[in-house]
Amino acid sequence: MRIALDAMGGDNAPFEIVWGGVLAAAQTEDSIILVGDEKAIRKSLKHRHPKIRPIPDVEALLKSGRLTIVHTDEAIAMDDAPAAAVRRKKNCSINVCMRMVKEGQADAAVSAGNSGAMAASALFILGRIKGVARPAIATVMPTSNASRPLLLLDAGANTDCHHEWLREFAVMGDIYSRLVLGREEPTIGLMSIGTEDCKGNELTKHAFPLLRSYTPGICFKGNVEGHDVFEGETDVIVCDGFIGNVILKTSESAAHAMGGWLKRIIKSSIWYKLAAIPLIPALKTFKQHMDPEIYGGAPLLGVPGAVIITHGSSTHKAIFYACRAGSRAAKHNVSQAIAERIAALPEAPLDEELDALLHNASQPTAQNPVENDAEKR
Amino acid sequence: MRIALDAMGGDNAPFEIVWGGVLAAAQTEDSIILVGDEKAIRKSLKHRHPKIRPIPDVEALLKSGRLTIVHTDEAIAMDDAPAAAVRRKKNCSINVCMRMVKEGQADAAVSAGNSGAMAASALFILGRIKGVARPAIATVMPTSNASRPLLLLDAGANTDCHHEWLREFAVMGDIYSRLVLGREEPTIGLMSIGTEDCKGNELTKHAFPLLRSYTPGICFKGNVEGHDVFEGETDVIVCDGFIGNVILKTSESAAHAMGGWLKRIIKSSIWYKLAAIPLIPALKTFKQHMDPEIYGGAPLLGVPGAVIITHGSSTHKAIFYACRAGSRAAKHNVSQAIAERIAALPEAPLDEELDALLHNASQPTAQNPVENDAEKR
Repeated sequence: MRIALDAMGGDNAPFEIVWGGVLAAAQTEDSIILVGDEKAIRKSLKHRHPKIRPIPDVEALLKSGRLTIVHTDEAIAMDDAPAAAVRRKKNCSINVCMRMVKEGQADAAVSAGNSGAMAASALFILGRIKGVARPAIATVMPTSNASRPLLLLDAGANTDCHHEWLREFAVMGDIYSRLVLGREEPTIGLMSIGTEDCKGNELTKHAFPLLRSYTPGICFKGNVEGHDVFEGETDVIVCDGFIGNVILKTSESAAHAMGGWLKRIIKSSIWYKLAAIPLIPALKTFKQHMDPEIYGGAPLLGVPGAVIITHGSSTHKAIFYACRAGSRAAKHNVSQAIAERIAALPEAPLDEELDALLHNASQPTAQNPVENDAEKR
Repeated sequence: MRIALDAMGGDNAPFEIVWGGVLAAAQTEDSIILVGDEKAIRKSLKHRHPKIRPIPDVEALLKSGRLTIVHTDEAIAMDDAPAAAVRRKKNCSINVCMRMVKEGQADAAVSAGNSGAMAASALFILGRIKGVARPAIATVMPTSNASRPLLLLDAGANTDCHHEWLREFAVMGDIYSRLVLGREEPTIGLMSIGTEDCKGNELTKHAFPLLRSYTPGICFKGNVEGHDVFEGETDVIVCDGFIGNVILKTSESAAHAMGGWLKRIIKSSIWYKLAAIPLIPALKTFKQHMDPEIYGGAPLLGVPGAVIITHGSSTHKAIFYACRAGSRAAKHNVSQAIAERIAALPEAPLDEELDALLHNASQPTAQNPVENDAEKR
């Protein structure tokens, strides 16, 4: 597969991005197209990456065409208003990557740049898969079960969602989980505030019957709650982009805070520090387990083409795994599978019909707003 | 202060609850009223609590009237539909506690029972403070700054909120933070998906100008995001009850998962186990830091009376701190303060006016849904 890699996007661009691309070109079957300011890219290629051993033969990769450079001198700054910027800067690296995918010169696009810009550029240039109302950013998160990461979508592309969009998120998540994450029968959960069927807000209460009765081909386990995020017993969790973004960032915040507290306590005494030395490999393993970089970034699902967004702070490792995810998404033709499944979805019932279903389901709880928190805390 | 303590509510009732009450009666100025099945309560009092040293003189406390028992044999089960149950079981322990507060026989009510039942009972018996549209459950969470826990509300009482309710949450949170948590100038944040003013969903975009320009007396710092939850730089975060509940449970899930991973890794080798022994006190400190029990449970704000809800799994320690929080809330007359501040709130502008403010603020982002995730990931 040919991966168009935005060399200019991200806090550590171009150096970490470029070397992530080199690593992917050297260690996988894929060929990597570095898109960005050629001068800056070549400069990065001249400095060896301290953490990459053995050092790949960059010259050979360039000669063989496994690693190529496509020059563009426009770039989007992190503080640019994304959609505006991608419309104004026609030849910014993200747009060039997208155009290469659209025109068949690349099979996937990968960027650590502004996710809003990335999504806007994808919509602007690739458009949407027929029948998909809203593309969603899906993000892969670690769970207690190391071999079973969680796919959470939407992670921030759509803040106010219609319940029918959540059905599309479920289908797209199901496909990505099967084809790229390798789950055979991914279980789909609907993020709510309790696991009982009647729990939730207006959005989830309308989405629930849709997912249960009008979404063939998915294994819907019903409502899940915050407690389930790290359990490793659900493969895909669907929610609106506001909730998804809050979950993602709260989790990152919790992990960061806890790591910090542990560090501070151990550093508080010389004895603890000494005692901790033999545990360093264990703590490293712990850190690796929580490392989101190995999960291959966040696919933008619902656009015709494989598009992978990675964290702004991505290192060469994150980029390497993102390229692999993009390659798999392209190889298994995720977009095609989404198009087919979305086209085959049965017509959703009218809102009135859903309201009726809903009314019956939530009758006991309809009287009182506080009812909605009926589960024990 | 006189605390009506629901001895029958919670997973560890009555034993842990009763002894939490004994501890509060013994170590504070407050007198504790144990409400529930007298036989069960006396039985619990007969068995000493293994973790409480020195052992309080229960007989003396009972004689002095610092510890009293009010008998009722009705109780709400965790799986009862809360509101229905509190209406049906007129004399369930929660209702009795609330009636004692209403009739001035107690100054505060504390329960580890079903939070939905608790809130329903409070609304049912105490009603709402004049001008408060919706009472909210506020929850106190640990942060990176041990001396500055976070007050998050609503934590689950109201799943679909009107933006004006969020303004009330901000005022109630501000008052509780000042009077009970002892913050002098609590900073209030609005939970959103980015810190820029224009970020968020329809709800937060409408609430933002309200909090900024129509809520005198609060120190509004603007939008916050998931990353800020554990930072310890915001004293109060307001959001709808759906988001709040998801944040609370996701954080608990993250903490639990990370503790579990660390344990599993250390237990994976005999060497790690041995090496970890001298670190046990450090790990204990770490655990204490994350322990939500010391933060005094979750007040139900917006009802006329001090009502504290604690986690279903509360131990004697959680109950002890919850009684202290209830005592402080009653002593500083939080309800009265809320009533005054709510009554003094300026009229909120019409939705059309807010829409106008909004439209100007979010103009650049209005064109494209994905815009809403413009911040880098």
